[in-house]
Amino acid sequence: MSAPEAKRQRTQPTYELLYHPGIPGRGEYIRLVLEAAGAPYSDVANEKGSAGYATVQALCCSATSTGDDDGNPPVFAPPALRVAGAGKGGRALLVAQTPNILAYLAPRVGLAPADEADALHANQVVLTALDLSNETHDSHHPIAVSLYYEDQKEEAARRAVDFRENRIPKFFGYFERTLKGNEGLGKGKYLVGDKLSHADTTVWQVIDGLLFAFPKELQARKEEFPLIFEKFYPGIKEEKGLKEYLASDRRLKYSQGLFRHYPELDRE
Amino acid sequence: MSAPEAKRQRTQPTYELLYHPGIPGRGEYIRLVLEAAGAPYSDVANEKGSAGYATVQALCCSATSTGDDDGNPPVFAPPALRVAGAGKGGRALLVAQTPNILAYLAPRVGLAPADEADALHANQVVLTALDLSNETHDSHHPIAVSLYYEDQKEEAARRAVDFRENRIPKFFGYFERTLKGNEGLGKGKYLVGDKLSHADTTVWQVIDGLLFAFPKELQARKEEFPLIFEKFYPGIKEEKGLKEYLASDRRLKYSQGLFRHYPELDRE
Repeated sequence: MSAPEAKRQRTQPTYELLYHPGIPGRGEYIRLVLEAAGAPYSDVANEKGSAGYATVQALCCSATSTGDDDGNPPVFAPPALRVAGAGKGGRALLVAQTPNILAYLAPRVGLAPADEADALHANQVVLTALDLSNETHDSHHPIAVSLYYEDQKEEAARRAVDFRENRIPKFFGYFERTLKGNEGLGKGKYLVGDKLSHADTTVWQVIDGLLFAFPKELQARKEEFPLIFEKFYPGIKEEKGLKEYLASDRRLKYSQGLFRHYPELDRE
Repeated sequence: MSAPEAKRQRTQPTYELLYHPGIPGRGEYIRLVLEAAGAPYSDVANEKGSAGYATVQALCCSATSTGDDDGNPPVFAPPALRVAGAGKGGRALLVAQTPNILAYLAPRVGLAPADEADALHANQVVLTALDLSNETHDSHHPIAVSLYYEDQKEEAARRAVDFRENRIPKFFGYFERTLKGNEGLGKGKYLVGDKLSHADTTVWQVIDGLLFAFPKELQARKEEFPLIFEKFYPGIKEEKGLKEYLASDRRLKYSQGLFRHYPELDRE
């Protein structure tokens, strides 16, 4: 057991991540913030087996819930974050919606920019990266999340062409320009200000997922976005907290989730 | 000129809404918060003609910008909100991404819940409503935003079936349960707490847009969601600020934007 892992186990978890087990998915955006900050947390469904996932399902996936026992309203879908003692009357707070969780968490674990305008801009970049994340999902599921990929392959092939030719360059161009505009402070490595924020971890995760899902497309475009691929992407991987995490068992493999590799959807 | 309109014209606008002219679109979520709060604002592209829209395009639609002259980073897409004096060194703040703008604006115009947990939950509901807004757009544009509807009609027909049969009831069920869980305070009229918030204006706008886009589907489902259709939807229309706004010329008509009425996509 490494020293950081031992420390994690000795510390009582403050944050509980509630998400599906076995996949990175949208939960990964939350994990990266917690790991980068070295904040103690429990990944409930991955650490507590079927009882853990039963908790996730009861709190985040119920079609009949009107709220939990701590006075929190119902949750539309995972991920959610539960924080003991932070809710009404000292009860547990349950927060849902990925960008809402990140905006709540980042300043509390020291990962949000201190300046108010910078903090707003970090949330703005996060939301744009999560839009790209959603569009990546829809590139293999353009018709219905409730259907298999195999039942919407033709439509996915058509959507993936537009996604690769128009959407990836539009989003990456925006990230590249954001890095460029902040180059004086961020040196191409940080999107907002001069240190790591949840904007960086979130954009990094979408790019990493796309490198898995569309490796040929991204390879062909690397030269268009030099700050992203020469400074930002490799730099974030080496950040304290993240480097150890990315090499650990806690970092789950991509499979059949948000980011999927279907060679027929990638560039030829 | 009515008294509120005269008051609007006498007051120096603090908030500038930057969005496409002539359509409600995503700008409407911002307008509703400003109007409900009676906050002075300028709807730049609608009030200042081609020069106004040129400003929107320069600040929100440039494919080469690395930031504006006030030190704000580039914007991916409209809407954006500009606030004179609120940025770095007393310069203008430029904030983008609809949920980010709403989370910034609501507490400043008195429309966010005072309690911290309630404020987080309001943002959570807003984000879920905006997800439904995005899915509504994709019901007529499942393949590419860059193509005409006519070039993706077949795929839209297939996606709209899933949208009507699975997605609308899932989202509406969530809103209904949120109203139910908060019924003691909100009386079925408010989603969070006991007064109007940006959660209410945002969910209301999505429902209103869907009543335009899918009138038969919503008519057929009204009895499934009694709080939404008997208390919430009609109640919000009567709120101070909103009632006058909805009857005014400032409230733009739906047309070929986010919410579109294609009878062939609606229930038969």
